[in-house]
Formats: sequence, structure tokens, C-alpha cells
Amino acid sequence: MHKSIAVGVIGATGYTGIELVRILSLHPNVELKYLISESYSTYTINNIYPHLTNVIELELIKLDISQIIDTIDLVFLALPHGKYPEIAKELIDKGKRIIDLSANWRLRDAKVFQKWYLEEIISTTLLDSAIYGLPEIGNYAAIQTTNLLANPGCYSTASILGLAPLVSGNLIDLNSIIIDAKSGVSGAGRSLQLQTNYCEVNESFAAYQIGGVHRHIPEIEQELSRLAKTPILVHFTPHLVPMARGILATIYVKPIEKLTSLDLYHCYTAYYANSKFIRLNNSHKRPQTKQVRGTNYCDINLYLDERTNQIIIIAVIDNLLKGAAGQAVQNLNIMYSLPEETGLNHIAIYP
Amino acid sequence: MHKSIAVGVIGATGYTGIELVRILSLHPNVELKYLISESYSTYTINNIYPHLTNVIELELIKLDISQIIDTIDLVFLALPHGKYPEIAKELIDKGKRIIDLSANWRLRDAKVFQKWYLEEIISTTLLDSAIYGLPEIGNYAAIQTTNLLANPGCYSTASILGLAPLVSGNLIDLNSIIIDAKSGVSGAGRSLQLQTNYCEVNESFAAYQIGGVHRHIPEIEQELSRLAKTPILVHFTPHLVPMARGILATIYVKPIEKLTSLDLYHCYTAYYANSKFIRLNNSHKRPQTKQVRGTNYCDINLYLDERTNQIIIIAVIDNLLKGAAGQAVQNLNIMYSLPEETGLNHIAIYP
Amino acid sequence: MHKSIAVGVIGATGYTGIELVRILSLHPNVELKYLISESYSTYTINNIYPHLTNVIELELIKLDISQIIDTIDLVFLALPHGKYPEIAKELIDKGKRIIDLSANWRLRDAKVFQKWYLEEIISTTLLDSAIYGLPEIGNYAAIQTTNLLANPGCYSTASILGLAPLVSGNLIDLNSIIIDAKSGVSGAGRSLQLQTNYCEVNESFAAYQIGGVHRHIPEIEQELSRLAKTPILVHFTPHLVPMARGILATIYVKPIEKLTSLDLYHCYTAYYANSKFIRLNNSHKRPQTKQVRGTNYCDINLYLDERTNQIIIIAVIDNLLKGAAGQAVQNLNIMYSLPEETGLNHIAIYP
Amino acid sequence: MHKSIAVGVIGATGYTGIELVRILSLHPNVELKYLISESYSTYTINNIYPHLTNVIELELIKLDISQIIDTIDLVFLALPHGKYPEIAKELIDKGKRIIDLSANWRLRDAKVFQKWYLEEIISTTLLDSAIYGLPEIGNYAAIQTTNLLANPGCYSTASILGLAPLVSGNLIDLNSIIIDAKSGVSGAGRSLQLQTNYCEVNESFAAYQIGGVHRHIPEIEQELSRLAKTPILVHFTPHLVPMARGILATIYVKPIEKLTSLDLYHCYTAYYANSKFIRLNNSHKRPQTKQVRGTNYCDINLYLDERTNQIIIIAVIDNLLKGAAGQAVQNLNIMYSLPEETGLNHIAIYP
Repeated sequence: MHKSIAVGVIGATGYTGIELVRILSLHPNVELKYLISESYSTYTINNIYPHLTNVIELELIKLDISQIIDTIDLVFLALPHGKYPEIAKELIDKGKRIIDLSANWRLRDAKVFQKWYLEEIISTTLLDSAIYGLPEIGNYAAIQTTNLLANPGCYSTASILGLAPLVSGNLIDLNSIIIDAKSGVSGAGRSLQLQTNYCEVNESFAAYQIGGVHRHIPEIEQELSRLAKTPILVHFTPHLVPMARGILATIYVKPIEKLTSLDLYHCYTAYYANSKFIRLNNSHKRPQTKQVRGTNYCDINLYLDERTNQIIIIAVIDNLLKGAAGQAVQNLNIMYSLPEETGLNHIAIYP
Repeated sequence: MHKSIAVGVIGATGYTGIELVRILSLHPNVELKYLISESYSTYTINNIYPHLTNVIELELIKLDISQIIDTIDLVFLALPHGKYPEIAKELIDKGKRIIDLSANWRLRDAKVFQKWYLEEIISTTLLDSAIYGLPEIGNYAAIQTTNLLANPGCYSTASILGLAPLVSGNLIDLNSIIIDAKSGVSGAGRSLQLQTNYCEVNESFAAYQIGGVHRHIPEIEQELSRLAKTPILVHFTPHLVPMARGILATIYVKPIEKLTSLDLYHCYTAYYANSKFIRLNNSHKRPQTKQVRGTNYCDINLYLDERTNQIIIIAVIDNLLKGAAGQAVQNLNIMYSLPEETGLNHIAIYP
Repeated sequence: MHKSIAVGVIGATGYTGIELVRILSLHPNVELKYLISESYSTYTINNIYPHLTNVIELELIKLDISQIIDTIDLVFLALPHGKYPEIAKELIDKGKRIIDLSANWRLRDAKVFQKWYLEEIISTTLLDSAIYGLPEIGNYAAIQTTNLLANPGCYSTASILGLAPLVSGNLIDLNSIIIDAKSGVSGAGRSLQLQTNYCEVNESFAAYQIGGVHRHIPEIEQELSRLAKTPILVHFTPHLVPMARGILATIYVKPIEKLTSLDLYHCYTAYYANSKFIRLNNSHKRPQTKQVRGTNYCDINLYLDERTNQIIIIAVIDNLLKGAAGQAVQNLNIMYSLPEETGLNHIAIYP
Repeated sequence: MHKSIAVGVIGATGYTGIELVRILSLHPNVELKYLISESYSTYTINNIYPHLTNVIELELIKLDISQIIDTIDLVFLALPHGKYPEIAKELIDKGKRIIDLSANWRLRDAKVFQKWYLEEIISTTLLDSAIYGLPEIGNYAAIQTTNLLANPGCYSTASILGLAPLVSGNLIDLNSIIIDAKSGVSGAGRSLQLQTNYCEVNESFAAYQIGGVHRHIPEIEQELSRLAKTPILVHFTPHLVPMARGILATIYVKPIEKLTSLDLYHCYTAYYANSKFIRLNNSHKRPQTKQVRGTNYCDINLYLDERTNQIIIIAVIDNLLKGAAGQAVQNLNIMYSLPEETGLNHIAIYP
């Protein structure tokens, strides 16, 4: 098969951008054509990231959509939300496709966006044509045909995948959902913040945005409500782990009726029967983020505490892969009718 | 004031033991007289731990109770549970006092001990005279006079302190308690385990003993049930953080009636009005384990998620201080009618 | 090209073994046929390492050479030195090939081996046929035809590659070589040692085996002496870094005659003109181990301190790739006349 | 003894400043009176650093020297160099004393300062009265009487203390000195830099300022030249370790004549006979930074490599204590004729 899909990455030097570069440069059907960076234009990518020397040495260019639009098929937007509505519109108008890794189009309801993000959505017109790209929960067909793919948030991915089978199966008390999520530091991006200084983070574990205020909450609720066919609220508390990559979400729910461990396991195996990136772990090993590091897997472990009638679901992902760049490439594969796992056969580096 | 209390530490070279040595060697009322270690006897403590050179250079001796019993007032047992019932008996019989940092006497009911520890308690006679030593929850007087002090577990301390005011005040649904706890690696002790190898732990976050099976659960339930005056079950899931020290417990409960943030805060300030080691944080800073590292503080932050009517309590301690050696010295101070904070005025090392 | 080379890995569950599994399972010309493990036989590899679930689920088998010898072409020995001389002999006698990642055959002189390892070499007969497998320093042809490949040590690889051009070119004072090397913890293997316990290693930096006693010293001297055509002694001090992977060697030498930075750079570009895994960095970025993590590259940076007439060479590798498993696969490629980089096109994970 | 010395800290919220606050707030002879911070004035110190809640809750004030000058005895300047010459002058003129932790007055020769710092020294007049404050190398008397104390650099402290006995004793080839130094990240201060972002630092080891260009070099050379009574050049390469605190310097020198290990050891014990913060380690344990973490010790280990006739000296300090704030307080003690170790009896936190 020839390299038929010409792509550009806008925001190529952030942590999500550079992870896209890593994956795309070895993808058999993609030609990684343009790397766009406002901060570092005129440098080559390996000037900024020496680990890419001899691997990919493209020049970083400024964003000038007219220069690239005719020679690309798809653009990845690896930028904070709120950027470049006019460019998105121009690309779509010319029949190009966009995978937007920001929060721009994740929320279907512009009012909900405004409430949680304290600003207006950048384009309600474009919003109408956007598709939320979490393939495992049943919008595979819509992803195939969309020109504007809203790539899910990292916490949202782990949370929704951990809950979808039980919520869809109507097996749990929908008022009981508590998501206690823990993330590595790369989730904060490659920006200058005192809170991500090594000395602040290392040898410490922190909770943050406590009290149900994190912006991934409406996204989780939107998708779970869709699956449950009724509005759901979830409680969500994020934490910061002294490590670079990985999310582990510990999810607590109450069953409506008594379930056995086996019931639980079957519910998930049935729901995810065709999902190549979901691994249901039966092993007696502790679930840990290292087991998915550098890969697009979401590993899910299931437990029952019979004393307190509590179901515990542990979902682990690499926040930069299944939580961002990996999922974006998975979506690209679906959009171009390629096998879902094309270019995503990474094996976790251990240790 | 002269150094009036002569003490020995049995198990001096474990992480809890060495932390006792650090605290006791600067305690103004304690003479640290004997360091007992089966593994390293004949060495001096600074041979094993060079950081103690010029600070404390006592010889490590084998356990021979007859050699030390006449010249000591109190012994710290910093050993795994199940060790040396006859020595405990002999010490008590001779009027000496014991602070046992193991699980030996934490559970009041020998049957509960057997159920969770899968072995028999080492002495039911001694158990009757033992006192559970968490001074902040109302057994201060009993601690003062006991000769056998059961020092609480690390997870238990954070969990009980985080919940005591609400449980005592009868303000929450007692069936709703979920404790999601995260600990540094020193909680596993200084033993050879593959699971604590640097390469296994670093850059990874793990859940373990999932499903309500951790041995600190009955201890938490025992004390909370006592405070609530009714039996309580809690769900508890522990996690392992890639750091040496610290526990952060995120505790989720449902209020019985609508509470405001201020109600919540007042409930805790009232309950802990005289507790010098409890700090209720109002600051907008993220609660994190580093803020108590190397100190005996338990910092508690309180939050309300009004959307889901969820109370979130964050309790942080240093597992080796308030979770073990620091609390043991606090108990010693109470047992000898010293100000509770004697020798415990540490300031956290930051960063 | 079909998967023509059938291989087995003896010692598959150590850190080097599991890295071989990661690389070989995606190698286009290798069939990974047998995973041998004394400790974990009867389990599947993914029982022990859940990150391999759905990726490679081979059963771990006990070492019984008769069961496998007829259906394999090559065996990787990922064991400590001193193991299984009779098996090595049997394999060679049957025309099979061996890549031994231990120190068994690295030293050409059995007396030198005995002096540094305090035990006898396991077979002087086999030693005669063994070839030291560091392809970049001129034994490419010998590697192609050998049946017994001695894979270099991790420190040795970084040290020799950092020095080879200057030593071969006769440009430095051969009495002036000082190698100050720093390694991540995985270099110590996946064994139970107090020294690799997370709590001992983290937030600390240590020197060890100080005074010129590390066993990689004779290996470095052997190869550099060969290149210099005169006996060379080097001083070498290793250090332990709180990280899992990576070696950075800071090498100090004095030039015989005045050199410019450009002279230095040209010396290395000429010497390594055909070496695909050597990257000479010109960038102004700090050399760091992360830039080669998970890859087979050896990155070399060159500096001159004109005030003190000191040449400083910084060589960085991933100790488990170019320092062990990656180099072993590079050697396999050469032994089977495949392009050297087959199956080794990894891109460093960043961050 | 009453708290007789009233002090202020300018730059109280940096890592060095906050370490001064930790030490001074427990110092028996110091009243910590003013905390000055341009960035955070009007907050209390525990608003910025919650770990200080209940410990020290002083308000952070803006720098207005007229408001404080009459009620203080001494000021610590914990700022980058180049700041506030007029304030320094005013303080000195009014008979107040200054301990400056910056590089302002470390170099005796204004031209050397200009060459390495690429700017002019802020006051040559004040420079004349400044004293370099490394008490262990023989300027104890001058420290006692100075009003302007130049507190040494962190790398300089470890390097000079590691070399002073051999250089003073005229036992080594003065052209052979190579210092390979490794530091934790807090050495870079609490500023926003991409290079100290957690994700950039963790799981990586880097060399930086390679080629003999670090600004501590002229400081090391100045003091060693003074001790040797002849000009000395040293080679110095710094490295960055993924940890918050600690410096380990591995120092390589050649003896002039054959020395034994015992000669070496005696040279150091004699030189440092009265130095309370120098610990010469004989133990077989690996020297590591954790053994001095949080303390003012400088631990020195000595080794001989007889094969290559190389002396190896390992010096370890906590960069924020003996390398900055601890040494500053040690100097204060000397300036006020207090026992040198007053308020500095910290024991390292382990693990």
C-alpha cells in the first residue's frame, strides 16, 4: 500500500504533537508532510527534539494555511482549545479533514461548553458537523465519514471506557458513580508552570480541581448519558502522580441487583468483543500504568467488594496515546477505512 | 528537664525503626538506649545507615530481653505483627511499657483479627490491656495510663482522622463511605520484594489489594463504628505512588442533609480544636503529600460537589511519621504527660 | 521476506530478556519461538508481564535443550555469566548460533577473566571461536560468520564507542583516559537487592565500585588496546542514577597535539561514516539519556575545554538497547546479512 | 540564651529562601523578623507554602529597606546576583551585616567576575570588605568580623572541600584536576524554565554547560589557588540528576608521589580535625546524596585506583544546606561567636 494520506500537524512541538510525530512517522499509510509550530518555526524538529535526529528532520513552519491546503488531506490540531476557527472552516470547505485534539468540539451543546469553559464555542456551525471520536462506544460509522473529528479528552477516555458496558447494560445505580482519577504530569502539556516544575512534583502526590469542577466532567456525562439514554451526573476528582505518562482511573459504582464477578466480566467481554485496544485483565497482577505506557491500549480490571456491595473498575491508559495522539491516529485509520490498529502496534517499554 | 525516659527500639533498622531513631535521638526527654536488630547485630547503626555518622553511633544488639529490661522504661516494637508475645508479657509484668507499631493489638476482637490476618492473635490476655493510640479521636486518657499501646496503621490513621468529625457528628450516610488511598513505597517496609524494585515502581501508578481486602479495613471500621455508636462498613482501595513517603486519602461520603462548605469546615474545626497535629487547610493550594513530609501533621482539606451532593475529604500524612513513628512518639509524650508535640516540631523539607 | 530465523530466548523474564522479546516480536525476519525461564515456567509470558497481553502470549518453558534444538536457528542467552557451558557447546556442535549477552566470552584472555571475575571461564575451547560483537569498531566481517557472539557490556559499549575514533586515530594521550559513567537502575537486573529498592534509590545519586574495580574495565581496555595497537589502561567510575534506563558516560582525555572542535568532529564523522546507530550531535541541546530511550542509538557529543586542554566526550545509550538487547539484535541482523537496522527503527518515547 | 539576632530574608520564597526560613525558625538565637518577597507580598508565607501553616505565618512584605533597617541585625540576600547594590551599601553603612547567597562577592577580582558573568560587579567598594565564607578552609577569623559575607556556590563548596587537603598539602599534580559534578534540580531555583519541567527531567540524566564554562569554575580556582599558593586551573563538568536535592562531585586527581589509602585518609582527617560538618566515610557503603539530605554535612569518601595511579574523591552535600542556606547559617553562627552547629543539628530523612 502506498503512503496515500498526506497530513500536517499544527502544534507539533507540544507533548501531544510530538507523540503524533512519533506515531505518524512510522505509519505505513501516512505521509507526514507539514509540522507547524508558532514557537519554533525555522528550526527543524530535531533541533528542538534531538531524539528525532536521523529519524525525522522536517522544518517547522509557521501556520499559513494557503501554503499547505492544496497538498494535504488531513490536519491534526494539537493546540489548546479556542484556536483558529477560520482555518478549521477553510479546511472543511475545501474538503479537507480535521482531527482536533482540543476540547473545541467535544461538547455537543454550546451552552454546556460555555458553562464549563467560561467562553463561547468557536463555531456553532462547525460544531454541528463534528463527531466525537471514541470508537469503542458505538460511533464507528459516524467517525468513518466525518470531516471534523473531536478527539476525546484523556480523563474522559479512561472514565467512559471504564463505565460504558455497565451504563449501557443498565446494571448500575446511575447516581452512584465516583471516578477517582490519577494522571502523570504530561497531561498538563509542555508549558511553563510552577506546578509542573520537577521540584514541586517529585516525591509528592496531589489532588487538584477538587469538588467536581474539572472540564472533562461534562464530556464524561454527555457520553454516558447518551449510552444510558437518560441524564447522568458523575463525581470526578483528578490527582497528579509524580510520573510523566499514564492515567489510572479507579471507578466506584453500586450495582442495581446483585452481580457476580463473572457477570461483571462477561458484561465487559461482550461489550468490547470487537475492540482491539481494550484488554480485560484477569491476571492477579496489580493493574498499573506502566503496562500500557507508549501504547494505545486501555486495560480494564474489574472487582467486586461483596462486603460493601461495591463494584470497582480500574481503567489504565497512556494519556498521550489512547488519551490523545494514539486515539487520534486510531480515528484517522477509521476515517480512511484502514484496519484500526494500523501504525499502532506499539509494545509497552518495560521497565 | 533531664532525659528521664530510657527507651529501646526493637527492629531499629527497618524504615519505621530508623525514623524512630531520627526522632528519639533529638527528643529532649528520651534517652535512646538500645537499638535491637536481628539482621545487623554487632554493627553500629551508622555502619548500616551512614547518614547517622556523628549523630548516633550505637551498637546494634541482638534481642536478649534480660540484658536490657532493668535499665529501660519503654520499648518500641517496630516489627511485623506476630512477634515475641513472651517478651511483651515479660516487659508488662515487670512494669515496663510498650508501644507496639505492628498490628498485634489494634483489633479489639480476636476473631476479627483472625479473619483478616489468617492467624491467631498472639495473646488475648495482653489484648485486654492494650489501648488503641489515636489521640485525636478521644482516647487520650486511656493512652496516658496504658502499658501496652497499639499504634495505629498508616492508612487507618489518615482514613479515621479524615472521617471522625462527620461520623461522630452523625452527619453522613454511613453506607456511603469510600476511601481511595494512595501511599508511597516506604509503606511496604525495607524488605526484598520485586514489587518495590525501583524499576517496577518508577514511572508507574498501581492499584493493589482491590476489592476490599486490605488489613487496615477492620481497624478503620472498628474505630469509626465506636465513634458512630453503630457498626459501619467502609470500602477501601489502596494505591502505590512512585515516591518514598506520604499518604493521601481521598474520601467520598454523602451527607444525610444538605450541608454548606462552612458547616463542613466548622464541624472539623470544632472537633479538632485541641489537636495540635491536625491542620485544616483553607488555602487554594492543591493538597499534596509534600506539605507534611517529615512531620507529624495530618492535613485535612474539605470540599463539596453540589452537583452530585458529594463530600470530598482529602487527608494527607507522612506514613512514617503520623502514620507510624511520629504517632508513636506522640503517644509516648501522652503516656509520660509531656506536651504532645515534644520532640515533634519538625518542619517539612521543601522541596 | 518470510520469517526465516527461528530463535529462542533463555532467560526471557529478566529486563534484558523482556527487551529482547519486545524487539524480536516485531522483527520482520525472526520467529520468536521459545521463551525459556527457570523461575516462571508453565506461566505464559503475559501472566508475568501483563503489558504483553494480546501481543505475545507464549508459554514459558523450562530449559530442556533437546526439546528445542532441532527447531531453532539461534539462541539468545540472557543470563548471568557462568551458566550452561554444556548447552552452549551442544548448540554450536549442532550448527546452531548463539548470541550470549553475558560476560562469558567478552574477554579474549581467560586469565584476565579469572582475575576480574574471580572464577574460571566456562570453556576455553568455545572462547576461541567467540567474536566480540561491537560492529562499529571494525569486526563486522567476523560477526557475520561467527556462531558464538559475545554481546558487549552496557558500560563498555558507551565507553568504547565514545573513545574509538580518538584512540584509533592516535590523537590522545593514552594514559589520560578517565570515564565517569552514570547508569539507570535496570542495569542491576530484575533481582532482589536492597540497593535497588525504590526507597533506597529514589531522590539519591550514588557512586559505586569506586577505585577502578568494575568488571567492564578489562573489556574496555581490551578493545581500546586492540584499536590503539598498544596496551591501554583506563580509569572508570560508575554511578547510579534514580531512573530506570539509560547510560551517560562523560569521558575525559588529553589531546597529544592541539586540536580544534572541528578536528574533533571530523575525526568522529569520518570514523562513524557508515554506522547507522551512531549520531554525532551538533545541537546546542544538553545531551541526555532520554534522547535515546527505547532506541538502539548511541549519541555522541564532543567538547573542548581550551583553558585546561581537555577533551570531553559525552556518549549516551539506552543500557537495555544499544547496551544489551538492541545490540544483540543488531548483531543478529549482521549474522544473517540483513540490513543492520532491521527491526530496530524505534523512536524514543518523549517525554 | 535569648533570641538576640534579628534577621530578615530578602527573597524568602525561592528554594534557598524557604530553606533559610526552615532553619532559622528553629534556630535558638535568631528571631526571624522579616520575610521579603517581590513576587508574593501581602500573602503570608504559609499561603504560598502550606507546609508552614501553624509553623511560621509571617506576612511577606515588599522590599523597603527604611522600614526594617532599624530593627534588624542581619539580612540574608537570597536573590540572583546583580541585585540591590544600594541596599547593601546602606545596610553596611548603618552597621548591619549581610550574608549574600548570590555570586555578588564571591570572586575577589572584579575582572574575573566580568569575564565569567558578562557584566560588571555591582560595587567594587563593597567587594573590598567582603569575605568568602567557607569556614573549613581557613578563613574562620575573617568570617567572624565581616559585615559582608559572600556565601559560596553549591558546586564550589563540594569541589573545594573535596580538594582542599590535597591541594594545601601539595600532594597532587595541580594540572590534573577534573571535577565531574552531579546536582539535583533545585539548584536551578524556583523559576519557570522548560528545562526543569518534570517531564523533561524525569527518567533522564543530562550533562550541561560542558567544556569548562560554568560560573562556579573561577570561584573554585580562586580558593584552590589561594590554598596552593599558585594559580590553578580546574576542569569542571556539571550534570543534572532527576532528584530535587543533592550534589555528588566525583573528583579525579593524580598524586605527585605514590600515596597509600592510609596516607590519603590521614591527610583529610588532619586537615578537617576541627570541622564539625565534614564527615570522612570509611564505611563500605556507597556514598550517596541521600545520606546528607536536609543536613549541613559534607561527606567525603576517598579512593585510590592503583592500576592507573588515580585518586578519586567523592564529596556529597545537600545543595540547599551546605551548598546554600545551611552554610549561610553556619556563617551567621561564626559571625556571632555561636557554636558553629547551632540550629544545624538536622538528621537526614531516610528514606
